[in-house]
Amino acid sequence: MTQLAAPIERLIGELAKLPGVGRKTAQRFAFHVLKAPTEDVDALIAALRELREHIRPCTVCFNLAESELCPICADPRRERATVCVVEDAINVLALERTNAYRGVYHVLGGALSPLKDVGPEALRITELVERVRRDGVREVILATSPNVEGEATAVYLARLLKPLAVSTTRLAQGLPAGATLEFIDDVTIQRALENRRDY
Amino acid sequence: MTQLAAPIERLIGELAKLPGVGRKTAQRFAFHVLKAPTEDVDALIAALRELREHIRPCTVCFNLAESELCPICADPRRERATVCVVEDAINVLALERTNAYRGVYHVLGGALSPLKDVGPEALRITELVERVRRDGVREVILATSPNVEGEATAVYLARLLKPLAVSTTRLAQGLPAGATLEFIDDVTIQRALENRRDY
Repeated sequence: MTQLAAPIERLIGELAKLPGVGRKTAQRFAFHVLKAPTEDVDALIAALRELREHIRPCTVCFNLAESELCPICADPRRERATVCVVEDAINVLALERTNAYRGVYHVLGGALSPLKDVGPEALRITELVERVRRDGVREVILATSPNVEGEATAVYLARLLKPLAVSTTRLAQGLPAGATLEFIDDVTIQRALENRRDY
Repeated sequence: MTQLAAPIERLIGELAKLPGVGRKTAQRFAFHVLKAPTEDVDALIAALRELREHIRPCTVCFNLAESELCPICADPRRERATVCVVEDAINVLALERTNAYRGVYHVLGGALSPLKDVGPEALRITELVERVRRDGVREVILATSPNVEGEATAVYLARLLKPLAVSTTRLAQGLPAGATLEFIDDVTIQRALENRRDY
């Protein structure tokens, strides 16, 4: 029964496709856009169009790039012998935020998932093996997520890389920084126990 | 140190202007857009552009409209003798969702606020008075928000409408449906007490 002019309904419908955005949030966004200065709406439209037209995968690591190479592969200070394998380009951001990593990346484009019908051929795995062979990579850090699909992908990659002259490591699992033991789930505590270190 | 291609940074910056959206959420949105099918991005761009070009205020009630009249003012089944006064067009949606109101609306365009320097001349108050005089309005329902600014606006409008032959009402205040008394704030409980009814 809600009577809304068609253009607003359409925008609400499009905004509701964003991750974690339901109809009510999409409505708030749409009404915000209605009140926003014209320059802001123009800037948003321009940014959306530009993104689609100017962003492509890096030819080396499949991270997001504006030209042949992504900013990380183009940076001569990054160590090319260490490759950190992640599921998605957004994970590169999380690792870069730490300022703790000086190597390069390889973006798989997802994780193995029999349920979602994602097999090895759907990911950039051949390209990873090729890269390890060709570029003198000494260490591959498997930084897929610590969930079922990420673990399966890490196990698969570790087996695949075993015959090559490269060391394969996995991000540590354990207690998150600043946490209270009481509120940590059992699997995390179990893994923190298994991975305990001399102190 | 995060190295992101410039077009993504720009889109993240624009999306972070949406209400309640911080940088991390804007990042999730931007990466979603990157992976979305071209048709979806095109549809979003089209909806944004269309909104700006085709939406204007209804000439009668200042609700959002595609032509002279909004869908509600254009509906011959709505009772024109009852006018519900709201602060913003988004409030019309909330009232319409109830399916309990058959009258028409008047969108003020905000609430009186000395702090934000919003006086009566910034709102569509003259238009409301004019409309009440001209259109044979019998009841004006003051549906501004139950906060300081909304209350001040309701008090102001009630005084202004008093000399006219129109009854002025205000949305009831009391306990929200489904609430647990224990968790309700003092002001709400106080108002629910003041407005108590025979049972």
